[in-house]
Amino acid sequence: MAEQLTTPDFDVYPTNHRINSVDLDLYGVRLVWDDGVVGRYHALWLRENSPQAETTHPVTRETTEKIIDLPADLSVVDVTIDPDGDLVVQWSHGLTGSRIHRGWLRCHTAGVEDANRFSSPAPVLWDASMQDTLPRFSGNGKPNDEVFGCWLEAVAIYGLAILEGLPALPDTVEILARRVGTVRTSNFGQFFDVQTRPNADSNAYTALNLPAHTDLATREYAPGLQMLFAIENSATGGESLLTDGFAVARHLKDNDPETYAALTSTIVEFKNIAVDTDYRWQSPLIVTDNNGDVVEVRWTDWLRAPMRQEPEVVDTFYKALRIADSLMNDKAFQIEVKLKPGELLCFDNRRILHGRNAFDPASGSRWLRGCYIEREELLSCLRILDRQRRRRGI
Amino acid sequence: MAEQLTTPDFDVYPTNHRINSVDLDLYGVRLVWDDGVVGRYHALWLRENSPQAETTHPVTRETTEKIIDLPADLSVVDVTIDPDGDLVVQWSHGLTGSRIHRGWLRCHTAGVEDANRFSSPAPVLWDASMQDTLPRFSGNGKPNDEVFGCWLEAVAIYGLAILEGLPALPDTVEILARRVGTVRTSNFGQFFDVQTRPNADSNAYTALNLPAHTDLATREYAPGLQMLFAIENSATGGESLLTDGFAVARHLKDNDPETYAALTSTIVEFKNIAVDTDYRWQSPLIVTDNNGDVVEVRWTDWLRAPMRQEPEVVDTFYKALRIADSLMNDKAFQIEVKLKPGELLCFDNRRILHGRNAFDPASGSRWLRGCYIEREELLSCLRILDRQRRRRGI
Repeated sequence: MAEQLTTPDFDVYPTNHRINSVDLDLYGVRLVWDDGVVGRYHALWLRENSPQAETTHPVTRETTEKIIDLPADLSVVDVTIDPDGDLVVQWSHGLTGSRIHRGWLRCHTAGVEDANRFSSPAPVLWDASMQDTLPRFSGNGKPNDEVFGCWLEAVAIYGLAILEGLPALPDTVEILARRVGTVRTSNFGQFFDVQTRPNADSNAYTALNLPAHTDLATREYAPGLQMLFAIENSATGGESLLTDGFAVARHLKDNDPETYAALTSTIVEFKNIAVDTDYRWQSPLIVTDNNGDVVEVRWTDWLRAPMRQEPEVVDTFYKALRIADSLMNDKAFQIEVKLKPGELLCFDNRRILHGRNAFDPASGSRWLRGCYIEREELLSCLRILDRQRRRRGI
Repeated sequence: MAEQLTTPDFDVYPTNHRINSVDLDLYGVRLVWDDGVVGRYHALWLRENSPQAETTHPVTRETTEKIIDLPADLSVVDVTIDPDGDLVVQWSHGLTGSRIHRGWLRCHTAGVEDANRFSSPAPVLWDASMQDTLPRFSGNGKPNDEVFGCWLEAVAIYGLAILEGLPALPDTVEILARRVGTVRTSNFGQFFDVQTRPNADSNAYTALNLPAHTDLATREYAPGLQMLFAIENSATGGESLLTDGFAVARHLKDNDPETYAALTSTIVEFKNIAVDTDYRWQSPLIVTDNNGDVVEVRWTDWLRAPMRQEPEVVDTFYKALRIADSLMNDKAFQIEVKLKPGELLCFDNRRILHGRNAFDPASGSRWLRGCYIEREELLSCLRILDRQRRRRGI
């Protein structure tokens, strides 16, 4: 027999709040919580979120009763509070009744603060003044859940953070990345070694300096996060350079609206044309959403494809690009860090530009190993750590 | 010594057109092609796209001369046509001269038709009337490049196509997918077997019917393409159901603007809350770009998270959802296909909804193997096939 679920998912919903009174109303149920909060719940919504096996698959915890199969006039015909304080709903059609967990209901009440744990932490923009306060966390060989969670949260807020004190071994980045979630594969492989190579298929694999850029601007969706881990870094030079692209975008919007307008409106093609692949994508360099908010920067100047426009259009765009590219590489916006062996840098590849100073391969070795991972993996990981804390009652 | 490149990339640019006359102009160079087309090219643009080793890395073929390092007043001081018909440009700063390949230049001239091979083929929307003309291609065991290219092009146009006559073996889908490009991994693995499982972590792994849906709506970027390959399919039922979500969106826009407005504007949360992961994302069900064009549908009704809104808002959304969900599952918009062993279905997961009829696991076996891949991999593959044809002079 199927387990009778108490909530429709795998999460836990502790609450101190009790329901004082409950009634039917026009749409379904209206109740008053012990702190005066009024909760109003649509009948179809209550049915959709009923946790028993008839509506929620007991193993997958996914909805099994389809909204198009439910009658349009489905209504709640009776509602009571059971001895545990949970809601008991009687229906006009179908099931003999549903028990709605009180903590789950409180958490999903419209207007209740903190109810929505979807949210990612709000970003804090930064410039060169963060040089001495770059978020750093000590992994002590193997970070515990708390340190790991703080590091990921800092990535969500600042767009980057370093975890230090890890074993300077080739597989460290893989172990840490898989602890976050699924790793994104690209034509550079799942894990890539940033070292000089005799037949480099990217400037990254030379000893050249790299101006501020984001990775894989040639794809429809550039990777959300990048990890870069130092295994060896004794060569002279090779410092990592990091810029908050969102901070530069805001600076342009506030101080040079003409340049900002050119960069948010001109469609740029990126290309990565190799022997066996020909990746291209078109996008503005600064991507805004339907509300005009900056949601992404795409910036890899050496992968910009030739514009196919009249020279007047090219001229306007180049002027804007030169201003913005200078700012992206400006010391006033940039922090510099030479990753020590055992240090793992994680950054938001759709917000933070990274680059490096040239290095001298004859002076020592430089071996970074990196990978890509999507932002939802980080958010999922933070939510699971949060759930575990709730389970332990912290 | 570095190879002196003739074009700045790995592509080939055959042309029958010759340059009749050439001059300096305000922005750079102005020339007249033999068919009267006037080409005007910005000096900085010509410099950026100069193919020699000083500007383009001879191995990576990426730009090495950075736009911010070039003087703002860089100009062309002389321009001539060499005996091969290519352009020779003399600069005010730096290099002693650049040779710009005539075919490359023609292809990158503003306003020249077909110059831009970035473009994906224009989509053609469809409904149930495509049932008997569903794009199908015969793989004959191992499809040649031409068949393979036609199949991929049909996917780009119709959002789906079948390749048939492949070996009904477990690794066939992997072989074909890797021929397109990099496979996207998810928490379901790189290749997933759609079979009934004792402890299913998704309704997909049960014998239940599945209403029309897209996959991984809970991620920031849902996979661009999905492949589903039939290894065994003798069970009664289990027909695949396919709907063009863009066609339904257009129907709603034309016939029921209120419902369309609700679905393009209401932010819906999707959740996939499992034991170790908690993926969520928020998006309208029908996603439009800044121009109001439909660019994506996200549709997995059983992964819709509880709304946290007042019942009036919930009511409006539910009404719209029920109308649209009925259309997505309506026989007038849907085609039905029972994949035979050896048939590979590829579809655009951000446009096409897929579902299936329930099947009876006692009546026979049903084993599909699938994977995800991004749309830029398909486009890259089409461009490389195109390049190979040009190389062979076809």
